[in-house]
This record gives sequence, C-alpha cells and structure tokens, in this order.
Amino acid sequence: MAMARFGATAAGGVNRQALSAEDFVAQAELVRWGEALGLAASRDRIGNLFLRLPGTDPDAAPVLSGSHLDSQPTGGRFDGVYGVLAAFEAVQAIIERGVAHRHPIEVVAWMNEEGSRFAPGMMGSAVFAGARTEEETVSVRDAAGVSVADALAQCDIAMAQVPLRALGGPVHAYVEAHIEQGPVLEREGIPVGVVSGIQGKHTFRVEVLGEPSHAGTSERRERKDALIAATAMVQALAAEFHDAEDITKFTVGRFEVFPNAPSVVAGKVVFSIDLRHPRSDRLRAMSARIEPICRAVQGPCEVVVTRLSAADSLEFPTALRDRIRSIAGRLDIPSLDLPSAAGHDARYLHPIAPSAMIFVPCHLGITHNEAESAEPGDLAAGARVLADLLVELANEPARKESE
Amino acid sequence: MAMARFGATAAGGVNRQALSAEDFVAQAELVRWGEALGLAASRDRIGNLFLRLPGTDPDAAPVLSGSHLDSQPTGGRFDGVYGVLAAFEAVQAIIERGVAHRHPIEVVAWMNEEGSRFAPGMMGSAVFAGARTEEETVSVRDAAGVSVADALAQCDIAMAQVPLRALGGPVHAYVEAHIEQGPVLEREGIPVGVVSGIQGKHTFRVEVLGEPSHAGTSERRERKDALIAATAMVQALAAEFHDAEDITKFTVGRFEVFPNAPSVVAGKVVFSIDLRHPRSDRLRAMSARIEPICRAVQGPCEVVVTRLSAADSLEFPTALRDRIRSIAGRLDIPSLDLPSAAGHDARYLHPIAPSAMIFVPCHLGITHNEAESAEPGDLAAGARVLADLLVELANEPARKESE
Repeated sequence: MAMARFGATAAGGVNRQALSAEDFVAQAELVRWGEALGLAASRDRIGNLFLRLPGTDPDAAPVLSGSHLDSQPTGGRFDGVYGVLAAFEAVQAIIERGVAHRHPIEVVAWMNEEGSRFAPGMMGSAVFAGARTEEETVSVRDAAGVSVADALAQCDIAMAQVPLRALGGPVHAYVEAHIEQGPVLEREGIPVGVVSGIQGKHTFRVEVLGEPSHAGTSERRERKDALIAATAMVQALAAEFHDAEDITKFTVGRFEVFPNAPSVVAGKVVFSIDLRHPRSDRLRAMSARIEPICRAVQGPCEVVVTRLSAADSLEFPTALRDRIRSIAGRLDIPSLDLPSAAGHDARYLHPIAPSAMIFVPCHLGITHNEAESAEPGDLAAGARVLADLLVELANEPARKESE
Repeated sequence: MAMARFGATAAGGVNRQALSAEDFVAQAELVRWGEALGLAASRDRIGNLFLRLPGTDPDAAPVLSGSHLDSQPTGGRFDGVYGVLAAFEAVQAIIERGVAHRHPIEVVAWMNEEGSRFAPGMMGSAVFAGARTEEETVSVRDAAGVSVADALAQCDIAMAQVPLRALGGPVHAYVEAHIEQGPVLEREGIPVGVVSGIQGKHTFRVEVLGEPSHAGTSERRERKDALIAATAMVQALAAEFHDAEDITKFTVGRFEVFPNAPSVVAGKVVFSIDLRHPRSDRLRAMSARIEPICRAVQGPCEVVVTRLSAADSLEFPTALRDRIRSIAGRLDIPSLDLPSAAGHDARYLHPIAPSAMIFVPCHLGITHNEAESAEPGDLAAGARVLADLLVELANEPARKESE
C-alpha cells in the first residue's frame, strides 16, 4: 500500500509506467527502504534496479528474486510490485533472523515489464539475459516520441545517487513471486501456486496505410480508408482465432488512427496484436496466418505486419517446483501446481539460470485493472515460502559443483 | 502561400487547428494586412474575426464574405483560407478602384469550421447565427481536455489588440468562396462553380463500454472487449450504408481506445460517425438505423450513441445563383452549377441572410490532405466573380425594402 501511493489513481489503482517520474520515485523509495536494512543499491544501464544482501562467499553468483515496479496505465496495486516487495520482505526476515547464507541475495526490479509505454515489455530482463540487444531496445519510442534512451537519461538524473553496475552477469537462481492474474487459486481456496511454466506469446504491430480524404466529398470507391481496412482485419483475425475451447488468447489492445479527425477519412491505422497459446506449435501456426488474413481484407490499402516478439511456451525445472511444493508443505501452506497464462520476467531468466515462480491468489482474477486486489494473508503466505526457498538456494554450492 | 506559413507541415500542408497558437498568428497577420488597407478589425466572444470596409450608409447591414482559417491536423493550404483571402482581395480591389457602395463589406474568418480539435465544426458561424448556444459550445473539450472556453481565453490574450464586438447582428447577404473539394470543375475545365446547395450531414459519437482485463489470462467468453465490439459496429455500419450508386458518405474518422495498451483488453472505445446524403429523408432514415445496428453487435459491452449535429440538405436562393452565373458570363469566365458535398459555414448563414457560394477547382478533388492544391488562375477567376458580386450586393437597398 505504501508503494501504491506512487502513481495512485482516483479509482484506487496505479498508473506508474516504465521510466516515468512515478516509476523513479517508487524506485527511490525502495532504495531508501533498502538503506535502512543495510542493502547496497545498484542499477544497470538498461534501468534494472538491484538491492544486494552479501553472503559468506564473496565470489558466489547471486540468487535473484523480484519482479517489476512499472504498471499498466490503469493498472492495479499488486501486479509486479508484489514480487519485488515479497523478495524485499524475505530478505528483511533473513537479516532480522540472522540466517547465514553462502550466495548473495539480490532483490531486483526489472525495467518495463508491462510494455504499455514502450513495446514490447520485459525489456529490462530480456536485455539483462542477452535475449535482446541494448541498441534495438533503447531506440524504441513511446506514443509521445520519447525513446527508451531519452527516458534512461532521465533515469540517470533521477537515480544519480544509485551507483551503476555492469549489465548482466552470472545468476545462481531466480525466483519470482506474483499474483496469479487468473481465478484458479482463489476459487480453490489455495494460497500458494507452484508455477509449472509460462504460455507462449507472440506480439505484432500492424500498420495499415490508406490515404486521408474528405468525409463529405470523396467517393467510397475512390477512398483508401485505413480504418475500414483495419477494423475488417481485427474482425477477420478474431474470427480466425476463435476456438470453442477458449484456449487461444487474441487481443488487439492498442489501435491508433491518423489524423484521427471526425471528418477526415483515416490515412493510417497502427494496431497491436497479442497472441498467446500454451502449445508452441499451435502458436507458431497461428502467427503465420496473421499476415495473409490481413492481406485478404486490406482492400485498396497497404498493410505491413511486423513481429515484435516471439516467445514460445516454457516449463520451469521440476527440481525447483518440487522444492516450492515441499517448503509449502513444511510450513502447512496448501499449494497447487498451475501454469502461467501471463508472461513474466522469469521467461528471460529461465534460459540463463534455474528459475521458478510462486503465485498467490488475486480477487476474481481481475488484473491490468484498477480494481485488482489480493488478501494480506495470501501475500504473506507466498512471501514465507519465498523466504525459505531463497535461504535454501543461497546455501547451495556454486552451480558448477552442483550440476 | 503567405498564410500557409502559419502551421506549415513538412509535407507541404498545414496544421492550423482552431484556436491554436498557429491560428492566432494567422489571424494577427490578417489583421495587419487589413490595417495596411485601412480596414477596421473586430472579433466576437466566440472567436470570429471581422475586417470592415465602411459603405456610404452607416445604418446598412453589412455584406459578409469569408470562410475559415483553421485546418485539419494534416490539412491543405486552400480549404477555408481561400474564401477568407478571396474576400480580402475583392475588398482590396474595391478600395483600389474606388468603387462606391452603400452597405459595409466585412471579411470574416469563422471560428472552428473543421471540427477536428473541437467537435462538431462550424462553431463560430453556428453561434453567430443563433443555431447553437454559446454555453453548450464553450463547454466542448479537445482530446487534451482543453475546453473551447479555455482556448477562447487564450485568444483574448493573443488577440488583445483587436476590439470585441457584439455577437451576431443583421447580415444583408453572405457569400463564401471555397475550393470545390471534389473533382468536377477540374475534370470539366471550368474555373467557377455556382453552388446549388449543401448536402445534409449528421454526426454522432459512439461510446462502447467494456471492461479492461489481462490479454494473457482473461478468457474470451468472460471478456468485455470494447475494441472487438467497436470494430464489429464499424463493419456492420459500413455494410448497411454501402449503396451501389456511391452517394451515401459514411466515415469513421476518429477512433480512440482506452487504456490503449497492447496487453490490456480495451475497456472503452469512443468513435465518431460522419454521415452525409443529398436527400434529407434518406439521411434521416439512415441516422435512425445507427443505434439499432450498434446494439445488434455490441456483444457483452454497452453502447451509447449520441447525435452531435443534424444538418439537413439545403438549397441556396436561385436569385443569387443566377447573379453569380451572369457575372461570370459578363467576365467571360465559364461557370457550372454543382452541389456541395462538403459542409460550409454558409450552411448557418443561409437561414439568417441570402447566402451563396462560389467554388473553384482543386487538383483531383484531393482535400483534407497535405497534398491539396489549386491553380492561381482559377483562384483569381473565383475572386473576380466574388468582387463583382460583393459590389452588386453592397449597392442593393436595405433588405426590408428589397423583399
């Protein structure tokens, strides 16, 4: 609730978009909370923030745990923030109990998980893990024309008191706690979810090019109306991806019209596609259908389909999932295995380090919405399991010995 | 070309939206040009600008001639501006030739004809003529939340040197010169169009209310996706209003999505409808179909259809049209009768004073587009006919005597 003050909306949600003033203020507050515990803050060039608790072995790779502080424009108080603060409170408990551990433990807040201001999302974790280049990432612009590079220069000013560290580096293990963003845990009355994996997600930008003309004088058969073409594409895609089992997730969330004036036939439309499916083969097959479907209904307009990201479905290591399940059992906290329909930063850590996710219930599965809510008891249960897991991981031998 | 410097775009067009800084600078330039000729500038509370050439009878109602200086966001150099400057140059010729006239002649630039920043358009002429209330008009807001009242306060500052006059008042006659915004005159090789009337236009705002949710986790059958519903409405309306003869003009030029983020199912869409037809009965019948068609495809969303304006088709007085035709004949300038598919400020002057319009060709009918263009010879021909008509009208007896 203390973090939800930064970017608070009238409807009780949060608007704290990546690399905004609200984001910087929230990060600075986290740094202050860390200082009170003696945690050393650092940040990298792509805007990821770390709070480090040293272990007994100065050469050991850190155990990372966290999520993100940025939100959707009309986002909630828990998405992302919970994972950062659960890790923070786990570290606080480890310090207060004086629990010894070999590896350093680092709380991390990844830059731009949401992808609402700068698309696509998970920028910080993807660049950290080497899945995307820094060059390509910093050139992305928001709707106002501000680039990630410009916004990072603002970050350098706002966060000047936090020293820079090198980008990337070895990670012993990564654990991310998060609200489920679905209805299952609440419905089953189970406070902790053991996340089996993340469903695949491909994202696209579709640019429809027409010709602006006068709404009163231009004849229909001479028009190149980009809005008529784009709305036809959205309807055709929605029909194509309609499955009776309701497994495919197809979303056009952004749709921008130029010049966007009531009496001017639209000269250009740019819209986003977010396509997800738990089976990677199905997802790839559907992605390949997007461009032909758009072309089939483009009429007199041109269309350019650009794939922005293509993340296949993944499964977290069973050894880590078993461990979460047994820690929960030891603490008498009921748990349930379930997949993640949403994407998370853990997707990008998974290829470079053993990674896991812990879910907690959120009310009715409502998320990316100011009404998002979760129960304090469930949030605490997830943080307790996380704290014990971090201690176990931080006391493992270095990875080379263990594998 | 001198006026096109204000709001000039890289592509050779103009972005000079109503009551913007660019609009104020253009108005101030026109006032300066008028001062050089001895014309007295004044403006009214709703932002209309007048340059007055006195006649011999100080009690006679003025002959008004002009159009508008505001443009679409990606507009051209001729739409509106031509009518203001044709009237200005006609007055200049009348002064330089020392032609006597009884009525004052006033050059007018009406506020916000385009309706792109503040919808609907033709605000200045509608309030001047009493067709819309000042209260309702000043409360309209642009996309940034700025009201017409706020923008008029800016106008008061920018145009402080120009004295205020009372709103409205008697008008002896009104003549508006304008580019055709259609292909007919150019195709026929005729420099002057005698405008028979203006086709009717009804405008609407459609608000589609859904519920924002997560693109990866929310199930299709539980979604209230405002974008899926709104695109279905646009497609259904386009199909309904598709006529083989291509007479109906149906345009959705503005379409705004909230929160407009790639991974959030749209919670709200607001779109515009601009519907025109030369037959008022057909137009009214089509307008009545809009709400039922939207409701038929609203799915799980709500829809609110609001009519913003409803202007039926009109015919200009035959006496004035005959006069334009005969002046053109006297000057050896070929002319052609044709209707106006676009709306103009003359629509609102027509009910309060004898009104007419003179068209000149524009290249390929391209308009509301930065590529808009017109030939100097045609523009001059229209201004010559206008000058002679203004002198004739300004030497008529006062209207009470003449009718």
